[in-house]
Amino acid sequence: MRALLTSIPLTVLLASPSFADPLPSWTDTATKAGIIAFVERVTDPGSPDYVTPAARIAVFDNDGTLWAEQPVYFQLLFAIDRLKEMAAADPAVLSSDVLRAAAKGDMETVAASGTEGLLQIVSATHSGLTVDEFQAAVRNWLDTARHSSTGMAYDEMIYQPMLELLSYLRDEGFHTYIASGGGLHFIRVFSENAYNIPPEQVIGSIGNGSYSAQDGPPRVMKDPGIFFIDDKAGKPVAIEARIGRRPVIAVGNSDGDFQMLEWTTAGEDARLGILLHHTDGEREYAYGRDSHIGQLARGLDEAASRGWLVIDMAGDWERVWPGGE
Amino acid sequence: MRALLTSIPLTVLLASPSFADPLPSWTDTATKAGIIAFVERVTDPGSPDYVTPAARIAVFDNDGTLWAEQPVYFQLLFAIDRLKEMAAADPAVLSSDVLRAAAKGDMETVAASGTEGLLQIVSATHSGLTVDEFQAAVRNWLDTARHSSTGMAYDEMIYQPMLELLSYLRDEGFHTYIASGGGLHFIRVFSENAYNIPPEQVIGSIGNGSYSAQDGPPRVMKDPGIFFIDDKAGKPVAIEARIGRRPVIAVGNSDGDFQMLEWTTAGEDARLGILLHHTDGEREYAYGRDSHIGQLARGLDEAASRGWLVIDMAGDWERVWPGGE
Repeated sequence: MRALLTSIPLTVLLASPSFADPLPSWTDTATKAGIIAFVERVTDPGSPDYVTPAARIAVFDNDGTLWAEQPVYFQLLFAIDRLKEMAAADPAVLSSDVLRAAAKGDMETVAASGTEGLLQIVSATHSGLTVDEFQAAVRNWLDTARHSSTGMAYDEMIYQPMLELLSYLRDEGFHTYIASGGGLHFIRVFSENAYNIPPEQVIGSIGNGSYSAQDGPPRVMKDPGIFFIDDKAGKPVAIEARIGRRPVIAVGNSDGDFQMLEWTTAGEDARLGILLHHTDGEREYAYGRDSHIGQLARGLDEAASRGWLVIDMAGDWERVWPGGE
Repeated sequence: MRALLTSIPLTVLLASPSFADPLPSWTDTATKAGIIAFVERVTDPGSPDYVTPAARIAVFDNDGTLWAEQPVYFQLLFAIDRLKEMAAADPAVLSSDVLRAAAKGDMETVAASGTEGLLQIVSATHSGLTVDEFQAAVRNWLDTARHSSTGMAYDEMIYQPMLELLSYLRDEGFHTYIASGGGLHFIRVFSENAYNIPPEQVIGSIGNGSYSAQDGPPRVMKDPGIFFIDDKAGKPVAIEARIGRRPVIAVGNSDGDFQMLEWTTAGEDARLGILLHHTDGEREYAYGRDSHIGQLARGLDEAASRGWLVIDMAGDWERVWPGGE
């Protein structure tokens, strides 16, 4: 047996899975090395920073972290497409200026209406139906709608290096969660296929809901109005309520993720905060400090002093999309 | 090898884990047989009712289902003990008639104040501190307080047959969740030790929360006011929001669990609803149809027509408590 083993060339041993690069789409930079060093530090039973598998929680923002968010949040594009469909069937749906503007595709007016207008569009298009009906509508939209610049399906505009990071963390015993400002029911439609994240590990914003067993089978309804917005200071609150543990790793891309990273990395023992900086106008988009969507200013200012890693998309990623460059 | 195997007595093979009774504290009645038959039906890959492991979700109510709830919800006893402590330090805490009555142990006035009064007591004693501080207070109370009739610690007043059911279901690939009208942060303090249910699988009522990074380390606070009550029609809504799947098995004991069982068993494919009827005044308590706590009337009326199993505690359970009879 020993003779047999020593006759195997070293190159074969190095090519075996345990020696394989867990992050092949990441350039060999300090960012990649920092991530791997941290994961090894918390998963090595001999390490003083060892974390038990049950406590290995990693939370990921979705828009701009796991999938793209330009030129505008994809969920808003779904809402506007749905609003147009609803208005074609019943024009009375367009009961306000911002709804009329949205249905005409007048994105300037929509943008000027701010969060208030955005929530109005979301509420109008995400309520008055069951969760199952809503998710069927999202599924149908994802299957047919295409991104204006790339021509890709929206749920293909996910980042290959992040898929590798998710997979690497799960291989190392981490439980990977989404903690998104986007809608819980919206994200669940594609999170399992796209990211291998099951519905119970999706945390997101959610509208009012109710249960009904009248005039039909027992069902959970989506009602008008916002119940909880999982953004900024809402993220730590929702993560605590949902998981009951402080994460070990938090990954985001905008100042909406600041408090999630701040809370995570303020925990005792080893913690890691990671920010994705969109620096790649060639393969994706270049934005951050002054962006209306996914603004990243405070995060960039404080990352170094807080020990957070900042991914430079252009320099740290060999490849952006699963299918292409 | 074959000779060796055939020399092992049959009794040894029968005593091996796969042949062991998964519910040893359950009397051999139709209830026990019904539970086991259902679990086999949904876990046998050859069965037309086979359910994949990812979809094997079982939800359990807590008060009166996993632990006792008489003479009054244990969390209310914690709240009153805590209110007394708070009032000793600062009498101004007792700012209403119901709070003053509660601090004096005047349970009649507390009971007469209804849900409104109860929520006032909970809000006053479950807010103004961090989640960590609150849970330390609960831990300390569980370690010191004792039940007035049994003299047992409250987190020992858990039902041995239910522990076996939880364990059996997990062995069969089920994910076991608590869905309780009781407090999320309260239950998490003992759910892992008592039931082997981790914090991320506890669903419960929750007060308002907020995040703060001012004047101290980043932390999640418990604030005054109720955010969500996970009872009655709230249970299906919360379970859907938290898990994103309709459970396969739902277990409760009161009409507060009716909608959870109704929604669960209205799902396509095989589903099971189970109600625990407290019929055992000798070993525990006998109550149900006319009880102020844990009332079970509609559930008893409709169980048979809906195909739900009703556990008769006196007849179906050989043993009630882990340590005793």
